[in-house]
Amino acid sequence: MLKDGVLDPQGKAIEHALHVLGFLDVENVRAGRIIELETAAKTQEAALKQGEEMGRNLLANGVIENFSVEVIQ
Amino acid sequence: MLKDGVLDPQGKAIEHALHVLGFLDVENVRAGRIIELETAAKTQEAALKQGEEMGRNLLANGVIENFSVEVIQ
Repeated sequence: MLKDGVLDPQGKAIEHALHVLGFLDVENVRAGRIIELETAAKTQEAALKQGEEMGRNLLANGVIENFSVEVIQ
Repeated sequence: MLKDGVLDPQGKAIEHALHVLGFLDVENVRAGRIIELETAAKTQEAALKQGEEMGRNLLANGVIENFSVEVIQ
């Protein structure tokens, strides 16, 4: 997800559209990305480490985005 | 997330890039969207119902996407 303080035009556009549709009590809409993948990592720790490495190296833009890794067996 | 069987070019591109970076044991990469928002719904059930309604009416493309709603208090 985008870091706090980073402008989120997509979130703003979704918020506006939801208000137009009558969901008036909705606020602070933030849009982000979710990436699911399968890995052959042998342990939960190895998969977590690999996920964080992929996040840092490719999947997340560290300047404007925070990311988190969840391992599901 | 995209429904099973729907082509996911973004997922394919990410998978290829991860392989190029050396994460060779990664497969079935799927890319999707996550939307966080705040609502003034009074109960967990009301928030869940509202989230599903927003998903059906605007936030998800029911033809090619599945969506799920998680309420966090």
